[in-house]
Amino acid sequence: MSEREIRYLPTGFQAAGIAAGIKERGSDRLDLGLLLADEAYPAACLFTKNALQGAHIPVCREHLKRSGGLVRAILVNAGNANCATGAEGIDDAFACAEKVAEEIGCPTEQVLPMSTGVIGARLPLDRILDAIPGLVHRAATNGADDFARAILTTDTRPKIVATRYLDGDLQITGIAKGSGMIHPDMATMLAFLLTDARLVEPLDTLRSVADQSFHCLSVDGDTSPNDSVVLWGSGTGSCPPDRLTRPLTRAAQELCQLIASDGEGASRTILIEVSGAASDDEARQAAATIATSPLVKTAIAGRDPNWGRIVSAVGRSGVSVDLAKASLNIGTARLFENGRPLPENEAAASKWLNSEPDHSYPDILCDLGVGDGLCRYWTCDLTADYVRINADYRS
Amino acid sequence: MSEREIRYLPTGFQAAGIAAGIKERGSDRLDLGLLLADEAYPAACLFTKNALQGAHIPVCREHLKRSGGLVRAILVNAGNANCATGAEGIDDAFACAEKVAEEIGCPTEQVLPMSTGVIGARLPLDRILDAIPGLVHRAATNGADDFARAILTTDTRPKIVATRYLDGDLQITGIAKGSGMIHPDMATMLAFLLTDARLVEPLDTLRSVADQSFHCLSVDGDTSPNDSVVLWGSGTGSCPPDRLTRPLTRAAQELCQLIASDGEGASRTILIEVSGAASDDEARQAAATIATSPLVKTAIAGRDPNWGRIVSAVGRSGVSVDLAKASLNIGTARLFENGRPLPENEAAASKWLNSEPDHSYPDILCDLGVGDGLCRYWTCDLTADYVRINADYRS
Repeated sequence: MSEREIRYLPTGFQAAGIAAGIKERGSDRLDLGLLLADEAYPAACLFTKNALQGAHIPVCREHLKRSGGLVRAILVNAGNANCATGAEGIDDAFACAEKVAEEIGCPTEQVLPMSTGVIGARLPLDRILDAIPGLVHRAATNGADDFARAILTTDTRPKIVATRYLDGDLQITGIAKGSGMIHPDMATMLAFLLTDARLVEPLDTLRSVADQSFHCLSVDGDTSPNDSVVLWGSGTGSCPPDRLTRPLTRAAQELCQLIASDGEGASRTILIEVSGAASDDEARQAAATIATSPLVKTAIAGRDPNWGRIVSAVGRSGVSVDLAKASLNIGTARLFENGRPLPENEAAASKWLNSEPDHSYPDILCDLGVGDGLCRYWTCDLTADYVRINADYRS
Repeated sequence: MSEREIRYLPTGFQAAGIAAGIKERGSDRLDLGLLLADEAYPAACLFTKNALQGAHIPVCREHLKRSGGLVRAILVNAGNANCATGAEGIDDAFACAEKVAEEIGCPTEQVLPMSTGVIGARLPLDRILDAIPGLVHRAATNGADDFARAILTTDTRPKIVATRYLDGDLQITGIAKGSGMIHPDMATMLAFLLTDARLVEPLDTLRSVADQSFHCLSVDGDTSPNDSVVLWGSGTGSCPPDRLTRPLTRAAQELCQLIASDGEGASRTILIEVSGAASDDEARQAAATIATSPLVKTAIAGRDPNWGRIVSAVGRSGVSVDLAKASLNIGTARLFENGRPLPENEAAASKWLNSEPDHSYPDILCDLGVGDGLCRYWTCDLTADYVRINADYRS
């Protein structure tokens, strides 16, 4: 697959990005992005479960309801979250959608506005409204890359997964942003899964995909009030609906890996697999506790196979574990078994951590010795750079 | 109160510390400590709720049961947690207690052994047993400082609170260690509250004290498998039992503040007060979520009054909050009210964060606008030094 092909969108979609001066007035940094469909296509969204919600969320919910889930365009600004901005913030989000609808000629409710960035400041509405005509004009089938750049905040690189499955019968392009404030129990970032497939029950499909991908991803355990995951299908392709979930899940998992590897300050992704849990939910709870433990994450930053911290994190996670039957690997090196350490394997574990991530084989593999529950979970290490980025983000 | 007076123990207690070569063979770093009572006095202990438990915990539980809660001596080693060491670890902990009992001439069950340090390595038992006679010999009424030094791991300074209350009718000396892996839902560190008061229901008293102190303390959200809080009273003083809880709580809160201010890599303590919650438990849950948010903690490290991250943490904490009535202060500066930011007060908030901690007035003051639930919670910021300390601890 050529580099060029990766940048394309599924049939029926266009995209664009523009510098509207939201991140920095007068700068040429892209900060306003558009996804544009040839017609209004079915879409489903998952939004944050945070009690604090960005202004775009009630607007999107209302629009999806009024449009019957048919979406023509999605407008995303980065640099300002339009969150904790009261009723005025909601008016601003609506005004953005209205302007896009006017430019492309569709009902306002077919446009979803989204925002990401700093909390608590009003959107620079004039600059956004001024930029929208030019943005719509730029929309093109090869605009995914500009869009992916326009939605970034502290990310260091755009995140695009674009591929064809089932001998070309299925096109999926995933685009995401997210580097900090990434944690499950919500749409933990902005992520867009575009496909040429016909979506029958898009929300069910998206929930099932997110359960094995975006809900198993944590950078720092913080849940953002804004972020949102979208599944959107043009129906121009020929993939049977019942063959869709698995390829979509694979694409979403690849996005998770891209996000974890670009986690703020991250020097290494960590793929965690918890098995032998009483249930899949307990496996996820144990994995999430490991993934959010600062002591585990700093140990990985130091490439220290400190299994004691991992077992300790599992111990406090509140799930059933039989320590006499439990086991723990770092990569292929078994470090703990039958309640006892295996120090002779620490050198191999250390070597694993010092090697390039494999991305398919778990870096931390923990069997709880209780049942059949399983979860794969993506995270990254915690470095001094994370602290630097977040201590200085606003000031 | 003179500096000298602070170092003394309540009547009936002695203490000592010695270098046994546990942290580093042949070094003169104190790493074995002893608290010794003139007679066996009533004591109560709270232990970690981690499913992984240090070997000393089952031994202590068994000894307290067999002795009817009467304790003559507590032996603490630092540098090795004797945790995840299987049945042999339990034998080792027992052997340490047995040796102390032999030296001082008391039943073994009146001796509690405790350990803190690296997980997963056997204790250097010979070195500890060899050091015990000299340690017992050194025990003295002015030995609190040596003891406090001997139990440290990554701490940078000993933590002692010693004072007299009620016109001298009540002596309390608190000694603690703990710098990382500090989080509630357990005895989150090693902490010893010694008093000359007569304890009637020591476990009830200790639970009530811990609920307002050690269970409201987090450095990094990680819960250690080893740590333990002890309340121990000689009964030689004249304080009425019903006047005991408040001064003990005050002493324990001072220890919490000392631990937070010595949190690994911490550059600033953070006192959080959550009010207006549906219940005290919900207040604690919201406070704990703020206290463990890497984004909040790094913002404080950068002295950035980033109230959006705090409100966002409250939003994801799972407690009832009425954002239209909620408010948020940093120090005396109100930053959020009625669902809207008050940017005009950010300069005052920034000044508060850049000033020396007050320790009595909350740094973060959040009212949820729902009920009367209240909690005070101690934590510290998250700095690049925390990462450095924990990336390099073992390797």
